[in-house]
Amino acid sequence: MAAYDKLVERFKKLHRLNHLSALATWDQAAMMPSGSNQARSEALAEMSTLTHELLTASEVGDWIEVAREESLDDLQKASLREMERQFEQTSVMPADLVKAKSLAASGCEHAWRSQRPENDWQGFSKNLEKVLKLTREEASIRSESSGVSPYDAMLELYEPGVNCQQLDTLFGDVKQWLPDYVQQATERHQSSHYEMPEGPFATDNLKALGQEVMTLLGFDFNRGRLDVSAHPFCGGVSEDVRITTRYRDNDFIESLMGVVHETGHARYEQNRPAETLGLPVSNGRSMGIHEGQSLFFEMQIGRSREFLALIRPLLLKHLTGGEELPAYQLNNLETIYRRVQPGFIRVEADEVTYPAHIILRYEIEKALISGDMTVSDLPDTWHEKMQQYLNLSTEGNYKDGCMQDIHWPLGAFGYFPSYTLGAMYAAQLFATIQNTIPDVHAKISSGELSVIFDWLKDNIWSQGSRYSTSELITRATGEDLNASFFKEHLKARYLTD
Amino acid sequence: MAAYDKLVERFKKLHRLNHLSALATWDQAAMMPSGSNQARSEALAEMSTLTHELLTASEVGDWIEVAREESLDDLQKASLREMERQFEQTSVMPADLVKAKSLAASGCEHAWRSQRPENDWQGFSKNLEKVLKLTREEASIRSESSGVSPYDAMLELYEPGVNCQQLDTLFGDVKQWLPDYVQQATERHQSSHYEMPEGPFATDNLKALGQEVMTLLGFDFNRGRLDVSAHPFCGGVSEDVRITTRYRDNDFIESLMGVVHETGHARYEQNRPAETLGLPVSNGRSMGIHEGQSLFFEMQIGRSREFLALIRPLLLKHLTGGEELPAYQLNNLETIYRRVQPGFIRVEADEVTYPAHIILRYEIEKALISGDMTVSDLPDTWHEKMQQYLNLSTEGNYKDGCMQDIHWPLGAFGYFPSYTLGAMYAAQLFATIQNTIPDVHAKISSGELSVIFDWLKDNIWSQGSRYSTSELITRATGEDLNASFFKEHLKARYLTD
Ligand SMILES: [Zn+2]
Ligand SMILES: [Zn+2]
Repeated sequence: MAAYDKLVERFKKLHRLNHLSALATWDQAAMMPSGSNQARSEALAEMSTLTHELLTASEVGDWIEVAREESLDDLQKASLREMERQFEQTSVMPADLVKAKSLAASGCEHAWRSQRPENDWQGFSKNLEKVLKLTREEASIRSESSGVSPYDAMLELYEPGVNCQQLDTLFGDVKQWLPDYVQQATERHQSSHYEMPEGPFATDNLKALGQEVMTLLGFDFNRGRLDVSAHPFCGGVSEDVRITTRYRDNDFIESLMGVVHETGHARYEQNRPAETLGLPVSNGRSMGIHEGQSLFFEMQIGRSREFLALIRPLLLKHLTGGEELPAYQLNNLETIYRRVQPGFIRVEADEVTYPAHIILRYEIEKALISGDMTVSDLPDTWHEKMQQYLNLSTEGNYKDGCMQDIHWPLGAFGYFPSYTLGAMYAAQLFATIQNTIPDVHAKISSGELSVIFDWLKDNIWSQGSRYSTSELITRATGEDLNASFFKEHLKARYLTD
Repeated sequence: MAAYDKLVERFKKLHRLNHLSALATWDQAAMMPSGSNQARSEALAEMSTLTHELLTASEVGDWIEVAREESLDDLQKASLREMERQFEQTSVMPADLVKAKSLAASGCEHAWRSQRPENDWQGFSKNLEKVLKLTREEASIRSESSGVSPYDAMLELYEPGVNCQQLDTLFGDVKQWLPDYVQQATERHQSSHYEMPEGPFATDNLKALGQEVMTLLGFDFNRGRLDVSAHPFCGGVSEDVRITTRYRDNDFIESLMGVVHETGHARYEQNRPAETLGLPVSNGRSMGIHEGQSLFFEMQIGRSREFLALIRPLLLKHLTGGEELPAYQLNNLETIYRRVQPGFIRVEADEVTYPAHIILRYEIEKALISGDMTVSDLPDTWHEKMQQYLNLSTEGNYKDGCMQDIHWPLGAFGYFPSYTLGAMYAAQLFATIQNTIPDVHAKISSGELSVIFDWLKDNIWSQGSRYSTSELITRATGEDLNASFFKEHLKARYLTD
């Protein structure tokens, strides 16, 4: 058997085993009773050890060496490149560092769950220092092996091919115009009038509404489910995608858009290339491209006037018993879904202020990894940047400031940029579609969404990781990522009548 | 490290990995959308290969050899014995036979799903012949290795320590008095009058009722769940027991008792000895003892007049909105739950006729494995025995006769006796409890069930597989299994005013 084929066999084996872990992780969040947590965590850790061994085994390295010399077609070459990337990124980390970081991270995260509500910066910062120290060790090892800077080496984990230089340019551009956009959009919103739909809404109705909207968006319920968890996510496996939401009996506005968002992630997963399924080359290209799909669904389509017009009859059907109430008028819904208001919390931020939250975190984590900043500098720097970008003070307010996110406690430095890259990809993709498909807006309001999704399927979803991110986006849109599409989108939606 | 400790490590690793398979199997039946079935089956098969390798690895055999000479306490000795049993039973089977049987069985079972409704005996019998041929090979290999007869070797898989000689005695006893009991009980039932509670019952109400009854029976919802599947079962893992039921909007009678039954299995699983959890010695002792717990819950407690009195207010609360309807009167409920009527289908059989279904299958499968019977004899023999035991003809009616069960298509010859052994264990345990705990009946009607469950926990559940079945039942009840308790139970419930 050719070495490449041996690699295929090994990665498909890993795919099948990871299926079980992915399912158990979904269950842990959506189904599992709390008393089972220890047994579940132990089972997942055992499997993680086992798949780590299978992935980093020395024969895998040998097969890669040999396969490089084998005669492979273009897709196989891309496939080998992605196998190699997974192998290198996983095997470069010494086992004791992996273990130490995992312990420090789970300790930090566990304590953070109670420290955050108590605003306990002193307690938290000690734990975070440990996680940061180990992450800097990790970044330095990854840097040495890949020849890029330590922070770029961390970025590589989430955004292969993206580096600080590119982010500095993209985010530098955004920083030029964003404060003004935020101010204008906030003022416009403050002078607007709207009425919130009033509950209580029954869970069964909210669920039926969510499922009907998912169907409209092409979610394949034959290979996926919608359930409930404390923090909405898209999990499971490509062949069985599990998304979650949560229901509040007095508000459907954000949770419905959350379902639309996760459906974007889900469709990317459900439409990965079947012929290479199980191989790394079939995976979503990057976190940013993944977020690009969910934000395409949520921001480009979901919050458009045309989409709100399309789902308005469903809102009436499931939430008012068919009655036309003022809060469900199209103009009112549009106003609600376009509220802009600077706030402390990233996950609650609107489309316009969100990038400020990300740029702040990007600048800070870059400095934390390079050593230009220490954990003790964090609260002051956070406060200064919040003042500068959103005119808000977080002095003494750690819980709504630098303690609000789970990413750093978990050691996921380098992840945050993906969110705003995603918003930019989404805008650039939609701009291209508008130029490619006639009457896109009319098609949205009449529910002819499949022509849009087919374009995404052909150009993004079915490509998996065959091309580099830059190549993928250039093939799809004619140019590399460019913040101007995002800028134009915000301008058209929030600053134009 | 001592060899015994190495074994402990290996079996705990298997326990953690099996956790993920058990969960995925539950999900497949209770949650999974149908389009994901192939990926799920492949994932489970991969894991099964992997755990098979870990269990049967040659070092495990070596460790067992060495551990036999190590200084172990009594519990460790029992633990080693159970490890050895699992190792031997698994490693004695040649890999190609395991694979061939698994293929034949899944082919037979898959085809059976459509052949049964079509009454297609010709099609089915060809597939069953293949499964039987491979099972006879299996039985012969197991027989050679263990020194017992081929059928006894199959029995060992489900009922360690039980053999044909014992079953012939027990079932021979039952055959003496059962036909007369069936006739009398049927006649008594036919002259009784009752009224069926009328639906429609909302699923939410049936579920709330089921959960409340489970709570009454001590199910730990902090480490388990109740969900829905086409065929009710008890799955998951000891730390997270998942039971299922199904709801029909026009009938709650049998599905409620199904929940009571599965709760019996669940409590056995939830109360396995914590100090050895993960090792084979903590497993339920046998299929018969397991069924003994579920039938204790369903038959000894669940269908008693006292228990029906106890749950009657819950029925009214969830099903009639509190209204006292004639169908919910205690005498009426009792009459419903004591219907006796010979029928074709085992899974629908009442407590009195059930053993006839089992004895028939036991006699047939014993002859099929020994070679005294062939698959082509099956329909005639089935018909003759049904006439003899239950006065029913299955001539030409394969689907309600020898094609009704999934066990043989799956190659699970030797499993059926466990059901009636379970009924006997349940009766014997309850008889002992009646002699041990004062006023048991009054305690049931007043809901003081924990004293009964504590006795089961001490005497059965917490013992795991520490003792042989015979020793376990003798320690708990003062004597080995004896059909007379079951006989007395049936007499008292079905033949006495
Ligand atoms: Zn997302
Ligand atoms: Zn059972």
